[in-house]
Amino acid sequence: MDAGSFEALTVDTLGRRLGGLEALRARLGDDVAAWRTREVGDGNLNLVFIVESDKGGVVVKQALPYVRLVGESWPLPLKRSYFEYHALTRQAARAGGSVPEIFHFDEAQALIVMEYLTPHVILRRALIDGRQLPKIADDLALFMARTLFRGSDLAMETRKRKADLALFADNVELCDITENLVFSDPYFEAELNAHTAPQLDGIVAQLRADRDLKVTAQRMKHLFAAKAETLLHGDLHTGSIMVTDTDTRVIDPEFAFYGPMAFDVGMLFANFWMSYFSQSGHEEGGSREAMRAYLLGVLERCWSGFRVEFSRLWRSERDGILYQKSLFEDRGDVLGAEQALDAVMHEMWTDLLGFAGIEIHRRILGLAHNADFESIEDTDIRARCEAKALQFGRQIAVNRARMHSMTEANALATLIETGAVA
Amino acid sequence: MDAGSFEALTVDTLGRRLGGLEALRARLGDDVAAWRTREVGDGNLNLVFIVESDKGGVVVKQALPYVRLVGESWPLPLKRSYFEYHALTRQAARAGGSVPEIFHFDEAQALIVMEYLTPHVILRRALIDGRQLPKIADDLALFMARTLFRGSDLAMETRKRKADLALFADNVELCDITENLVFSDPYFEAELNAHTAPQLDGIVAQLRADRDLKVTAQRMKHLFAAKAETLLHGDLHTGSIMVTDTDTRVIDPEFAFYGPMAFDVGMLFANFWMSYFSQSGHEEGGSREAMRAYLLGVLERCWSGFRVEFSRLWRSERDGILYQKSLFEDRGDVLGAEQALDAVMHEMWTDLLGFAGIEIHRRILGLAHNADFESIEDTDIRARCEAKALQFGRQIAVNRARMHSMTEANALATLIETGAVA
Repeated sequence: MDAGSFEALTVDTLGRRLGGLEALRARLGDDVAAWRTREVGDGNLNLVFIVESDKGGVVVKQALPYVRLVGESWPLPLKRSYFEYHALTRQAARAGGSVPEIFHFDEAQALIVMEYLTPHVILRRALIDGRQLPKIADDLALFMARTLFRGSDLAMETRKRKADLALFADNVELCDITENLVFSDPYFEAELNAHTAPQLDGIVAQLRADRDLKVTAQRMKHLFAAKAETLLHGDLHTGSIMVTDTDTRVIDPEFAFYGPMAFDVGMLFANFWMSYFSQSGHEEGGSREAMRAYLLGVLERCWSGFRVEFSRLWRSERDGILYQKSLFEDRGDVLGAEQALDAVMHEMWTDLLGFAGIEIHRRILGLAHNADFESIEDTDIRARCEAKALQFGRQIAVNRARMHSMTEANALATLIETGAVA
Repeated sequence: MDAGSFEALTVDTLGRRLGGLEALRARLGDDVAAWRTREVGDGNLNLVFIVESDKGGVVVKQALPYVRLVGESWPLPLKRSYFEYHALTRQAARAGGSVPEIFHFDEAQALIVMEYLTPHVILRRALIDGRQLPKIADDLALFMARTLFRGSDLAMETRKRKADLALFADNVELCDITENLVFSDPYFEAELNAHTAPQLDGIVAQLRADRDLKVTAQRMKHLFAAKAETLLHGDLHTGSIMVTDTDTRVIDPEFAFYGPMAFDVGMLFANFWMSYFSQSGHEEGGSREAMRAYLLGVLERCWSGFRVEFSRLWRSERDGILYQKSLFEDRGDVLGAEQALDAVMHEMWTDLLGFAGIEIHRRILGLAHNADFESIEDTDIRARCEAKALQFGRQIAVNRARMHSMTEANALATLIETGAVA
């Protein structure tokens, strides 16, 4: 494949254009005519091909110069593929085994050839189907703790971190999507917004008139835009995670940039809570009571596991410029380091609640809805699920400094789900 | 002057090397032999020449490839001159008239030719001499509010801000100085530290064993390193300000980088408070009671003026991605925007107290002391002044979230100065 001007792949041209690459031949064999290609991209932005042969398979992901969900009227630069590639390599180094292996990257064609994960399914889909994945809480806790800690001034040489910060600072357009679609558009009548109408009209108007909520959303946006703390995944929802019962992989980090640790964690937790509130819309096949209990358990265990691993790294790999051991452990003040850790964890918890609440809102009020709710065909039922999630999101975001633990957050979710408070 | 390999200027070579520059000839005349050159650099890092003729004068500032205060054993890259130049141009655009005019910049020679400010003196020197400058509170309030607001996502196009963030992210070595010398070294027995001994040995040991203080210092360092909120001056102390009774100019922004707004404000206020606590060491010529009252008044008026101007800009120039008018004013919710402003100002106040306390400590416990205290020859008297400042710094830093206004901070300063609390 020439590295010349960009040309979108198709099912028909992929074999011809990529057939010469050793990275593919090594996995698919030299008989290119026998390669079977299908396009499976169901995301909002890119082309995704699965290429298989009798010998194996690979995934080919190619960026398009526009937002796939919207069309050519919304241009989006191909360089997001470059940021995705660089994020994947860093995540692989910091949290081994948590992302797909990369076989080939072509910057000009905005194209990444990577491991075909099978029989993995998208986590969001599995949760909609009522599957209880036994490993996600632990695996995602480790992924987040390791990538967030090891990409920050807690662990990195600060010179390298600042150079990397400068590299990712150019991922402007994808940050812009988050800045607008997540933090602002949901809170006024922006053109691209949509919500389940007319059922939600009342609560939507109420939320958009809610001064404390609007200020909170902008406070979180301020933090998102200003706090360049670590290399984030940037889009860590359940649609960016592929799972089996025994394996968990995080994909699609094209939104990667240096931001606050709490953003990734908050977005992921928001998606678990949305799954929780959506379960009653998927009860045709039977009660989802056990699934709801499972999801609250995942939240409890994932946050707990995150804290355990983050604390372990704090005690063993805190070699960066922040909270140096020369001030604490090296002077016999181990408790000083623990006190600082508590401050960091407390702030992260507070901030992640803010990010989580806003993420819930944008998925119900903004442009990019998620299948948890969208796949509920009865709009009355869907709206009831969404309204509960909206109330919950408002409460955890605005009340974030006064909600002390996951137990309390989950208790609030239960109160709202069961109708005990409305 | 050739733009070849770097060569430090001397008084003897300056005329020959710079005599061909139109930027100098326009101000000094073509008779280079009649130019009078003297070296006046009294800072820690650079060469500074004043070049005069009968027609006028200019300042030539040249970086050296090492820290002047320490010597060639501590290399420091010449590119800091590049960052200083870029910071000066941005400050000039954002706060017109507040910085020296730039006539010429030579990146390879790390050399900036700029306006010769006369009869200006260094503000720190004036305060030591007991001079009450009538305009500094207002002028510095405007400088800070305008540069900090206009360099942030409150006002800038975010794409430009991120490109600029990437540019200044390379100013690693000067950030490293602040990260180490300000936030960490003072709190353990670092090699470069010095303090007035033996008089301060007791309180120094006490502060270095103070767990809450150490954690606070590292919390502030975390904020300094991670919160890339606006283009800071980065070294805004009273030695970086030149004054007359009618003019105030800010110089020496080579530490410029994207950091938290509260850092510049906190550092400046710390230096006013240090001047306050140092006055009793300069009373040979008479009581400094009026000078102390003046300094507390400057702090009160500067913070008040900062808030007034920042609020004015908030209401009139808030055109960036944060706290957009589309969510507030455009929907008739003016009070929502005011509520957000209060949140931003409250956070800035809290953070600046933290930065101010740490800045006070590093100037007494660390490498770079300041003349306010150093020029007090009687070390017993000097130590008494310094001890009060140290106590004050500890209190405002650790207690920053519970100290509500400048009135309270100044009341604490008065209590400590008068010995009412110790």
